[in-house]
Amino acid sequence: MGDKLSGVGVSSGAGYGPALRLTRSVPDPPPGERHGGDADAEVRRAASAMEETAQDLALRGERAGGQAREVLGAQALMARDPALTDDIKKRIGEGASAARAVSEAMAVYRQMLANAGEYLAARVADLDDVRDRIVARLLGVPVPGLPESDTPYVLVATDLAPADTALLDPARVVAFITREGGPTSHTAILARALGLPAVVACAAADDIPDGTPLLVDGASGAVLVDPGPAEVEAAKAAAAARAAAAADSAGPGRTADGHEVPLLANIGGPDDLPAALQNGAEGVGLYRTEFLFLDRADAPGHDEQVASYRAVLEAFPGAKVVVRTLDSGADKPLAFLPPPGAEPNPALGERGLRLMRRYPEMQRSQLAALAEAARDTEADLQVMAPMVTDTEDAEWFAAAAEEAGIATAGIMIEVPAAALRARHLAGPAAFFSIGTNDLTQYTCAADREIGGLSRFQDPWQPGVLDLVAVAATAAADAGRPCGVCGEAAADPVLACVLTGLGVTSLSMGATALPLVRAALARTTLEECRAAADAALAARGPGDAKRAARAALTGLADLGL
Amino acid sequence: MGDKLSGVGVSSGAGYGPALRLTRSVPDPPPGERHGGDADAEVRRAASAMEETAQDLALRGERAGGQAREVLGAQALMARDPALTDDIKKRIGEGASAARAVSEAMAVYRQMLANAGEYLAARVADLDDVRDRIVARLLGVPVPGLPESDTPYVLVATDLAPADTALLDPARVVAFITREGGPTSHTAILARALGLPAVVACAAADDIPDGTPLLVDGASGAVLVDPGPAEVEAAKAAAAARAAAAADSAGPGRTADGHEVPLLANIGGPDDLPAALQNGAEGVGLYRTEFLFLDRADAPGHDEQVASYRAVLEAFPGAKVVVRTLDSGADKPLAFLPPPGAEPNPALGERGLRLMRRYPEMQRSQLAALAEAARDTEADLQVMAPMVTDTEDAEWFAAAAEEAGIATAGIMIEVPAAALRARHLAGPAAFFSIGTNDLTQYTCAADREIGGLSRFQDPWQPGVLDLVAVAATAAADAGRPCGVCGEAAADPVLACVLTGLGVTSLSMGATALPLVRAALARTTLEECRAAADAALAARGPGDAKRAARAALTGLADLGL
Repeated sequence: MGDKLSGVGVSSGAGYGPALRLTRSVPDPPPGERHGGDADAEVRRAASAMEETAQDLALRGERAGGQAREVLGAQALMARDPALTDDIKKRIGEGASAARAVSEAMAVYRQMLANAGEYLAARVADLDDVRDRIVARLLGVPVPGLPESDTPYVLVATDLAPADTALLDPARVVAFITREGGPTSHTAILARALGLPAVVACAAADDIPDGTPLLVDGASGAVLVDPGPAEVEAAKAAAAARAAAAADSAGPGRTADGHEVPLLANIGGPDDLPAALQNGAEGVGLYRTEFLFLDRADAPGHDEQVASYRAVLEAFPGAKVVVRTLDSGADKPLAFLPPPGAEPNPALGERGLRLMRRYPEMQRSQLAALAEAARDTEADLQVMAPMVTDTEDAEWFAAAAEEAGIATAGIMIEVPAAALRARHLAGPAAFFSIGTNDLTQYTCAADREIGGLSRFQDPWQPGVLDLVAVAATAAADAGRPCGVCGEAAADPVLACVLTGLGVTSLSMGATALPLVRAALARTTLEECRAAADAALAARGPGDAKRAARAALTGLADLGL
Repeated sequence: MGDKLSGVGVSSGAGYGPALRLTRSVPDPPPGERHGGDADAEVRRAASAMEETAQDLALRGERAGGQAREVLGAQALMARDPALTDDIKKRIGEGASAARAVSEAMAVYRQMLANAGEYLAARVADLDDVRDRIVARLLGVPVPGLPESDTPYVLVATDLAPADTALLDPARVVAFITREGGPTSHTAILARALGLPAVVACAAADDIPDGTPLLVDGASGAVLVDPGPAEVEAAKAAAAARAAAAADSAGPGRTADGHEVPLLANIGGPDDLPAALQNGAEGVGLYRTEFLFLDRADAPGHDEQVASYRAVLEAFPGAKVVVRTLDSGADKPLAFLPPPGAEPNPALGERGLRLMRRYPEMQRSQLAALAEAARDTEADLQVMAPMVTDTEDAEWFAAAAEEAGIATAGIMIEVPAAALRARHLAGPAAFFSIGTNDLTQYTCAADREIGGLSRFQDPWQPGVLDLVAVAATAAADAGRPCGVCGEAAADPVLACVLTGLGVTSLSMGATALPLVRAALARTTLEECRAAADAALAARGPGDAKRAARAALTGLADLGL
């Protein structure tokens, strides 16, 4: 009673309710387990469990839509993989039970995936989830998934997979707590997209019994066990204030004293447009075009690209649409654009613009498709290149865009060297867009995927804020805009700090827009600057956040 | 005639001579090649080729000494691996020729190594070299190795392996050119250790015919094909001036106007002491302790550690010996200190101090052994931690050193966040030592191992110089020393720039000390500062180097 657990707060707000744990554990069929003797019947049992699992995953994907559809569709394909089916059939033929055969065959598959290097962590977890679902059906135990509850609860898990959360009902879940994950994990991104408070990297998460009352503070990372009524009341009042503030917010982004900070949406394709429009996005600040290219044998053709880009451009007549050119490599490898050799550290390898410079025809064809897509629309098409490192990179991209007839070409600032040398890059680049996720990863030399390094994956790390300040100042001196399109922009407190550092627009997942709009509207530019100065003076991310919050008195009642 | 090829200059100076290519290609025995029928005789042939190769490698290692002995000894062990021998015997029993059996068995071994992930690139190349040597003996073709020549030549290769170069005669080789490699590759490090000019990442290297006269400029990266006599004369005069300057240099490191810059040695263990003492090192600036821990099943015990550390400390009575505590993880994994999970990017994972915080007993035992080793010596023992990222890290390490009774505990500055926040880290840290290799890797987000990214692996990148300036200024403000112990310190021009940026000591491979000492002695502190300002104002690494050289008029005749 009254215990306080701690983790890393990754989605602001407070949630109160009983803990309920995600059911994940499916027993592993014991080695040597054999079927009764009728191999054909056992093969049919295995085949139907695999097909049911594939259909279930595909259906969940269809219902959820958006990016979840892609992820779950890929999982459904794993469950239908012909090589896997053959291997399972062979093992059953040798006497293994269906469950055991599935478990063994998928262990081989898993090892192959793990050894393949890139893309590893995410895909292995997806495969494990498929195996658990098939084996659970064969054993007649519950399929892994969300707890059943008629009343709101705090979802507790070791980690959250896309299939777990695709059909999650935001009216039933009041917060997330996970043991794994960092600020850029799937859990964190989903929580922010749904506007749910979330704490990740909470070491004690696995030990919380179901039903324990929890008060989750997604801003500070604190989890109160069995809190008192006053604490719960205060948290509820803040949640109500936040909801009201978000609902009231409307119009273009601006501070209380009228300093304009356009609020834009991050999108992955046309599917994300409805949410962007509904939440009042003033344009698109980051259109991640790689989703069109992933998981296929060849690059999409000219017409397919034009159609996809045009759908987005037509949705924003008169507004800015910033398209990031193909960012492949590292955790998003493309079969048709391989890096030239083995990469022991793909995040530090030939990715983004580095790969386009190796395959310039790919860059040319994408820019040509973008130029044509924009021709009959009223959108203000702007393009930007990922992983720009130095002036030579920026000049190369500006020349490629000019050749394609695209007037405005900027760059992502996500490599520390690019931030440090922003005053030189502002020559060839028409604008900057700071990608705080990768910038944080490189500045702190800490992989976004590793749970044990979550302290270093925090954009509140003062060293990261230093680099934002350097880039924003250089942009202002050169008369160039400087936006932020990383996850940092979706944190209402950090959004005010970024504004104070001189950032001129903020782009984020669309559902985060209303609360960020409300936060800016309650704060003057001077207060933003004071919050920025306070954060820069801090010695660590926790101190920076506390100091900024203290300086932003207009946000006090929102419990951020 | 008169053609100019270009690459990346990684070791200053000019070398002129005919091109001679490293013999590497050993034909692959064709699939299905079978022996004559006497399997036992064929097994004996294979066994003797393997044993001869192992003995040859071990002998080369003994002759070369130092780190080459370790590397070549490990290769000899590969050639004697019992599992490999068994596999080859089995394949010969099935009819394969000895050469084919070796080739097939080693391909399996190679795949296993490659799949093991970290440490991959280096070990796979070493294994390929062992295979080529065994197969060459079996086929009766020349064993890969240095060209035979009685007159000096320019060594041209795709890349250089330790076994290639261990017995290289510096009197015969005047320069290196390789197609692969970057500023931190084995080729570059070796060239600097031998004081030979070298150009890596030279795309045209494979197309240079043997015997072509080449003039190699290891400073600019230019390679002149069939140069005129005047060009050759100027280069020879500069080389003579460099040799004379290095031979004349003596005493402690200081600028022409008496500003002291202690010149220290980077060492890997007691074997490196003779070279350090012979080249006038004023102490040790970086003692890499991990060589004592690599390639063994358990950590070395207390007494073994004390003996190894004491041998180094006793060599420098009254002088500073800076010991870097165990830097494992990433490309130096230790079996007994595994990271907690899969790491898709080990260089951004739990390595250095991060791993020690997970295994604090290991840190405690090393610090205790160091404290005891220092007890009866007159050396000034100082310890420093690798991969420190924030103030919390620095505080943790300072407390651990204090607990062990070690008075002076500093930190490596190799993570950009640590450089940016040096003013806070200077509280708990007694000194800084900038590791320019890793700092460059993270600042430019470019893996040190990838040839295609050599432009970004250059410590002349102005963004890297910015971070050196930030750290050195913060150290000066706090009254703390700030050294550099990365490869950058071994470049005489860059050494002057670092001094101008406020760096207070320089530590490098011992053979680089005389020329750096000479360069400093020809330059005033004011000229160093002017060179630093000029480099900071540059837009790219080439511009920075040119601008610094122009400012350092005292170095003009050295052709650096």
